[in-house]
Amino acid sequence: MKKVEHIGIAVKSIADADKLYEQLLGSAPYKHEAVESEGVTTSFFQCGDTKIELLESQDPNSAISKFIAKRGEGIHHLAFGVEDIRAEMKRLSDLGFTLLNDEPKQGADNKWVCFIHPKDCHGVLVELCQDIPNS
Amino acid sequence: MKKVEHIGIAVKSIADADKLYEQLLGSAPYKHEAVESEGVTTSFFQCGDTKIELLESQDPNSAISKFIAKRGEGIHHLAFGVEDIRAEMKRLSDLGFTLLNDEPKQGADNKWVCFIHPKDCHGVLVELCQDIPNS
Repeated sequence: MKKVEHIGIAVKSIADADKLYEQLLGSAPYKHEAVESEGVTTSFFQCGDTKIELLESQDPNSAISKFIAKRGEGIHHLAFGVEDIRAEMKRLSDLGFTLLNDEPKQGADNKWVCFIHPKDCHGVLVELCQDIPNS
Repeated sequence: MKKVEHIGIAVKSIADADKLYEQLLGSAPYKHEAVESEGVTTSFFQCGDTKIELLESQDPNSAISKFIAKRGEGIHHLAFGVEDIRAEMKRLSDLGFTLLNDEPKQGADNKWVCFIHPKDCHGVLVELCQDIPNS
């Protein structure tokens, strides 16, 4: 893992949370993006070499809706940047980690992503992400 | 906020979690430290410009014990590095954020720290931390 790429925070309203995190961090979000496959909209703040990703559900069946219904707003996942996501997926799978997707899938912010089951990471939903190379 | 300084993860056993996070991150913890005032022991991993801090309770009345009893293991707090903690505390207090300590207190890894109430940060327990200068 080369760095903490971002911390994903589940919120009820990005409009409200944007205002709050802009005050907290002292800078505005640099991008908003819908991720239709996940049923969410996102907002990204840069903070040093890491990002804060706010996630608002657009679908009552999304993972973010279910998370908020069960636990309330809060930190949803922790994402690590990797150079070669397929190599990391194989390395971790061989070590016994449970991958939640067998193939990298396209996530927000131009990334290939793969999630690891929180039961394997002491309750932390871990995401691996790799920049999608320009074609 | 100049950077994400660390992500704090509440675990039942640092001995167990150290093994797991060493596999996940591909590197060993660089330090273990007891923080008696908080009733915890900690383990730190470097990951790029950010750290992962594992926290194990040594006291059934500690915040970490209560967190695990209520929610299970998982991400406990998100810490931002600041240049001048007193200036950030005043700035955020003036904006209406609720500080959980009025004066900076000494935390792990040679830091002055202050926590902000999660109700003000969409469910995220935020820590401000500043390196303690060498005297």
